[in-house]
Amino acid sequence: MPSVTRLLPTPEAHDLLELTREIADKELAPHADDFEARGEFPRELIRTLGRSGLLGLPYSAEYGGAEQPYEVYLQVLEILASRWVGIAETVSVHTLACYPLAHHGTAEQRERWLPDLIGGELLGAYCLSEPAGGSDAANLTTKAVRDGDSYRVSGTKAWITHAGVADFYNVFCRTGGPGPKGISCLLAPADTPGLNPQTREKTMGLRSSPVAQIAFDDTVVPAERLIGGEGEGFRIAMGALDSGRLGIAACAIGLAQGALDYAVNYARERVQFGKPIIDLQGLGFMLADAATQISAARALMLHAARLRDAGLPYSIEAAKTKLFATDMAMQVATDAVQVLGGAGYVADHPVERYFREAKVLQIVEGTNQIQRMVIARSLAKD
Amino acid sequence: MPSVTRLLPTPEAHDLLELTREIADKELAPHADDFEARGEFPRELIRTLGRSGLLGLPYSAEYGGAEQPYEVYLQVLEILASRWVGIAETVSVHTLACYPLAHHGTAEQRERWLPDLIGGELLGAYCLSEPAGGSDAANLTTKAVRDGDSYRVSGTKAWITHAGVADFYNVFCRTGGPGPKGISCLLAPADTPGLNPQTREKTMGLRSSPVAQIAFDDTVVPAERLIGGEGEGFRIAMGALDSGRLGIAACAIGLAQGALDYAVNYARERVQFGKPIIDLQGLGFMLADAATQISAARALMLHAARLRDAGLPYSIEAAKTKLFATDMAMQVATDAVQVLGGAGYVADHPVERYFREAKVLQIVEGTNQIQRMVIARSLAKD
Amino acid sequence: MPSVTRLLPTPEAHDLLELTREIADKELAPHADDFEARGEFPRELIRTLGRSGLLGLPYSAEYGGAEQPYEVYLQVLEILASRWVGIAETVSVHTLACYPLAHHGTAEQRERWLPDLIGGELLGAYCLSEPAGGSDAANLTTKAVRDGDSYRVSGTKAWITHAGVADFYNVFCRTGGPGPKGISCLLAPADTPGLNPQTREKTMGLRSSPVAQIAFDDTVVPAERLIGGEGEGFRIAMGALDSGRLGIAACAIGLAQGALDYAVNYARERVQFGKPIIDLQGLGFMLADAATQISAARALMLHAARLRDAGLPYSIEAAKTKLFATDMAMQVATDAVQVLGGAGYVADHPVERYFREAKVLQIVEGTNQIQRMVIARSLAKD
Amino acid sequence: MPSVTRLLPTPEAHDLLELTREIADKELAPHADDFEARGEFPRELIRTLGRSGLLGLPYSAEYGGAEQPYEVYLQVLEILASRWVGIAETVSVHTLACYPLAHHGTAEQRERWLPDLIGGELLGAYCLSEPAGGSDAANLTTKAVRDGDSYRVSGTKAWITHAGVADFYNVFCRTGGPGPKGISCLLAPADTPGLNPQTREKTMGLRSSPVAQIAFDDTVVPAERLIGGEGEGFRIAMGALDSGRLGIAACAIGLAQGALDYAVNYARERVQFGKPIIDLQGLGFMLADAATQISAARALMLHAARLRDAGLPYSIEAAKTKLFATDMAMQVATDAVQVLGGAGYVADHPVERYFREAKVLQIVEGTNQIQRMVIARSLAKD
Repeated sequence: MPSVTRLLPTPEAHDLLELTREIADKELAPHADDFEARGEFPRELIRTLGRSGLLGLPYSAEYGGAEQPYEVYLQVLEILASRWVGIAETVSVHTLACYPLAHHGTAEQRERWLPDLIGGELLGAYCLSEPAGGSDAANLTTKAVRDGDSYRVSGTKAWITHAGVADFYNVFCRTGGPGPKGISCLLAPADTPGLNPQTREKTMGLRSSPVAQIAFDDTVVPAERLIGGEGEGFRIAMGALDSGRLGIAACAIGLAQGALDYAVNYARERVQFGKPIIDLQGLGFMLADAATQISAARALMLHAARLRDAGLPYSIEAAKTKLFATDMAMQVATDAVQVLGGAGYVADHPVERYFREAKVLQIVEGTNQIQRMVIARSLAKD
Repeated sequence: MPSVTRLLPTPEAHDLLELTREIADKELAPHADDFEARGEFPRELIRTLGRSGLLGLPYSAEYGGAEQPYEVYLQVLEILASRWVGIAETVSVHTLACYPLAHHGTAEQRERWLPDLIGGELLGAYCLSEPAGGSDAANLTTKAVRDGDSYRVSGTKAWITHAGVADFYNVFCRTGGPGPKGISCLLAPADTPGLNPQTREKTMGLRSSPVAQIAFDDTVVPAERLIGGEGEGFRIAMGALDSGRLGIAACAIGLAQGALDYAVNYARERVQFGKPIIDLQGLGFMLADAATQISAARALMLHAARLRDAGLPYSIEAAKTKLFATDMAMQVATDAVQVLGGAGYVADHPVERYFREAKVLQIVEGTNQIQRMVIARSLAKD
Repeated sequence: MPSVTRLLPTPEAHDLLELTREIADKELAPHADDFEARGEFPRELIRTLGRSGLLGLPYSAEYGGAEQPYEVYLQVLEILASRWVGIAETVSVHTLACYPLAHHGTAEQRERWLPDLIGGELLGAYCLSEPAGGSDAANLTTKAVRDGDSYRVSGTKAWITHAGVADFYNVFCRTGGPGPKGISCLLAPADTPGLNPQTREKTMGLRSSPVAQIAFDDTVVPAERLIGGEGEGFRIAMGALDSGRLGIAACAIGLAQGALDYAVNYARERVQFGKPIIDLQGLGFMLADAATQISAARALMLHAARLRDAGLPYSIEAAKTKLFATDMAMQVATDAVQVLGGAGYVADHPVERYFREAKVLQIVEGTNQIQRMVIARSLAKD
Repeated sequence: MPSVTRLLPTPEAHDLLELTREIADKELAPHADDFEARGEFPRELIRTLGRSGLLGLPYSAEYGGAEQPYEVYLQVLEILASRWVGIAETVSVHTLACYPLAHHGTAEQRERWLPDLIGGELLGAYCLSEPAGGSDAANLTTKAVRDGDSYRVSGTKAWITHAGVADFYNVFCRTGGPGPKGISCLLAPADTPGLNPQTREKTMGLRSSPVAQIAFDDTVVPAERLIGGEGEGFRIAMGALDSGRLGIAACAIGLAQGALDYAVNYARERVQFGKPIIDLQGLGFMLADAATQISAARALMLHAARLRDAGLPYSIEAAKTKLFATDMAMQVATDAVQVLGGAGYVADHPVERYFREAKVLQIVEGTNQIQRMVIARSLAKD
């Protein structure tokens, strides 16, 4: 992405982005089409990222993290996504899955599990949604009943990224009464008996990254794996979501930039009516609008990230960023296919894949309708 | 589509639409997912349509056609598309492929070939685009050199729907000098030696309908298969395109109506935050906008069709219809997936397929940028 | 509007539109800027329209009407609006104001008042909205208490077009309990004591057409002026609104066509970078989109009108038409100013006026949010 | 604007914004409606701003400037615009008018004139556009012929803000051959004989700020008032434009924020269907979208400003910002009127004014079509 001029906070951040670009170009991009076509999870490539330090960017150095500000972490995600959205989404989900432990775990819990997560030895997943209520987390129904030193968990979680390939699962479940205050967070290892990933969903895109329901069938999770206190689960989940929304926005911006770059290169070389089609103003204006929207989305994301880095409230700005960036990415990907015409509609060019991938970003981590609810409520009340 | 009230010109048209709906529901819809998933062309189902009289709707009864006005024909297409866009596109392309013969063939040519086309025994294809110039038909380069009683054809045609499954191909080729006046139209049988369909394109959607290049390698086509005179090919092609654009618009409107109907039904049953999500105004307004846009597109299509049926110029209105209907369908399909959320992103629900299919409609029969060029020129000159 | 090809039901309709165009060009257009600049109501010009038979187009010949289908009446409105939106709105409001009497009046009531209304001797107004509840007509609070042979009316009506210049007012008021079933319709003459038009609103556009509140201060209206039975007012109002929405849509389409025609002419003559700016594709595409949207809006309006003319339900299609046409007109007017650049921002060119006028059309006869509510409910229930 | 959280570079910047807010609220806002309604230029209020140091924010302290980074200056403009766009535009235009002298003047020229400009004693204007070629500055035709120690200037400049109230005019004129290299910049005092402001344009909004043509009729300007060398005028103008575009973007963002704040307050208090209309999701989502777009525009503006402050190329990002912010402001202002319904269409509420003012921002300092040309070219070439 030479066309993007970034203002980075440190020389170290500059080097980190260079490193990311190099890894993305040399070690990830060449494999993207294959893994996506086969629907295979690139576990080894994720380990490579872990060894390069890209799986624990925002976390404390004490546990192997890079202590990078979110402003920098999100640009790493963006660069990964511009080459391979699936990988970027995995990094985003994994980083999200570390959040409860890193922010709400006890010192002992953190010391015990966090280094392996951050180092990429263990891959995380995040179980919040349920089949009956994707958007209404406060009313989730998966139950966890205390039984001595353990919880017995029953219920079904839905739309779980990394289902079946993760090593641990954050499980948000009801330990108390109805509503948000009855929810807790358990960190369950993948090999817990009764924790059963179901058949993979046949998703339209991001096929390298498995998504499935997880059935909990009287699953026993030791009570020492409770993250935060009982009843703190909803608050933890919401905090994680704010961060996760920025991660999805970064994926969307990277996707859009990748799609635009591809379309621009194509439009410079493709000749119709005697000139490169990029010189036809109708097409050129469409690309100019795309470039403008991407720049705006990135600037908005960085603003939200800097608020977070400064310890200021950023929840509403995160919702705006997720909404804006993913709607924008859907439009840019649709237009990028259009620039290539018929060629854009076939698997020979990656814009076909970007188009299928962009759609899910409008849905995950809270649909864009949920984001609008969040923003509208803040206007009604503040 | 009980939600659509149609004003039809005759009781016969009403019966025809009922028949179409019945065939679509009982004989087509149950097979759509299978054929699309396998990427198999439903040749037998197309024969069924032929036997039901749905392959020659706008053509003369003399050759087995139903002599229906375009106003009615397009609504048949729309209903087919609301159940299975691939089938509707095949009917549209086949009807387009009959156009040169029906409108410009000699009486002898029509008698010889048209009944089998209209009856569905022979399937047609239409070879206009080329790899180097999809949008710039006036400068096509496939050559046809007269050699005694035949033409020898050399060159490559691209993005040919029905490639490899058609029984005959309309081939637009250069028999004279440069520009639009050097182009002619040949009707080549599929088994002509040297007419070689290439590997199928890996299209994102409409997979039941094969698309490929056709290589012409010194292909000998008898001169009696020239449709219209030498040099009339471009005029024939443009006339056919005007009709074909309305056909694609009908496919888009059917697709959008199918997607909206599905999303509405889902939104009536899906409960979140304690009520059916269709009662959440944010979602309800999105669906209301979709319903409005579909109604507008259908009305515009019928206006263009009635101009055509009345023998008035309709080329610009056809371009507007193609532009409006297909941009609309892309938006409606994108939003229909959104209504279902995660469920909309997986193959369990047809909106996932509609979304992939909608995109190509913005591209075929002249990209929507070409439509805008056509309309803008008419404003600059009339 | 030579660029519009219309399919009219009768030769009589064709002549009527020609007549309208002639009157609009010769007798109305030359005065538009003056009356709008001065904010003066063109009472004499309205009388001219009455004498030409343009004030009772959809009504029965028995009372002097032209018995034209809505399909034709709306195109008359559209042509008027393309030259002077204020006049078209007056015709639309007046026709709306005749609706209760024409459709729900007794034979005696109709004979007594309708001919003068249709002939343009008496000008009508329509008092439904109130200050506290513009959109929530079912809960209106203006009271009418029966007192012998009269009703005593108290309350305030808001946003009344023709306030102070009308000769009679349809007053929707509460004669019974709460909700829609307690509402009745009275036809009050302008000179009724206690019927007090308030100060004119300082509207951004449509300044020739006065808008104000009407205060009813113990106003005595004879009971013989009750239109329909007690409690039927809401049903009457809603029926009138459906028709009125089509009238506003016709105003919007005419406005947009007028704005487009003006912008196209300007763009053909204005030279920048060495050619007419209409030949710059960026601008040409914007105009092509505008032309497309206008065609779609007009087709949708005619579809709704034909449903009405056929005696079929058309309420939802009327809501779609009002929504689509007025949102479209706002966009087209905004872009028409843009085509002229700085010149479009000053009063020398009418696009400046169109821009100010377009905005109110998104608001009157039910805001476009109300239209979306109506459409969304129909999707939720049908 | 308590709803906006800003990350400012220094505590000084924070204080400056507080000061601005106080001046805007107490000294400017109370007079806005009056001056705008009367179309009177608030010369004294501008002097107040000069005394408060708000007229030379980005310029060197050596000449009385505040040496604030553009990042801060633009937020001052934004806050002014949220209360009164006309004042903000005056500050932006004046700052633009100081640019040639401050950046390209000799030390002597700067010392002589800059302090009075920055202090607000002298008000500046900027004469680039011409009647025949608003967008095509490279081909401007106003001539300046060297005659001894002076230039004799002839021609007409168009769309000049501050025409007739400015104390000095930057005049871009042709001193050499055709094209951009034949253009120079002269700094002419308002009282130069033959420098004749023409009749004020009747603009739709921003009426407190006079716009007119300036006729140069053999106007003699001393050669010592040439800024930069001969032939450097185009380069100076383009550099100034890049900065000026950011100024207009800041005006647009302030306008939109002002409109949104007003609409939100109204929607919190206005009750329909039994609750505040902001709690109706249809309206709430519209406001949420507006808030999102404003945040994105502001973030994009700050990104462009920080590039400029860092001495990096920012021309393309300035074009994107101007395009995005002003299109956004037009939409937000249109929707803000919609939130108020009929009340939004009358002069009692400022949203009516915002709506009229927003339109011109899409046109000035290069229409948004020009911005798209600039961006598209950068994509085609970089």
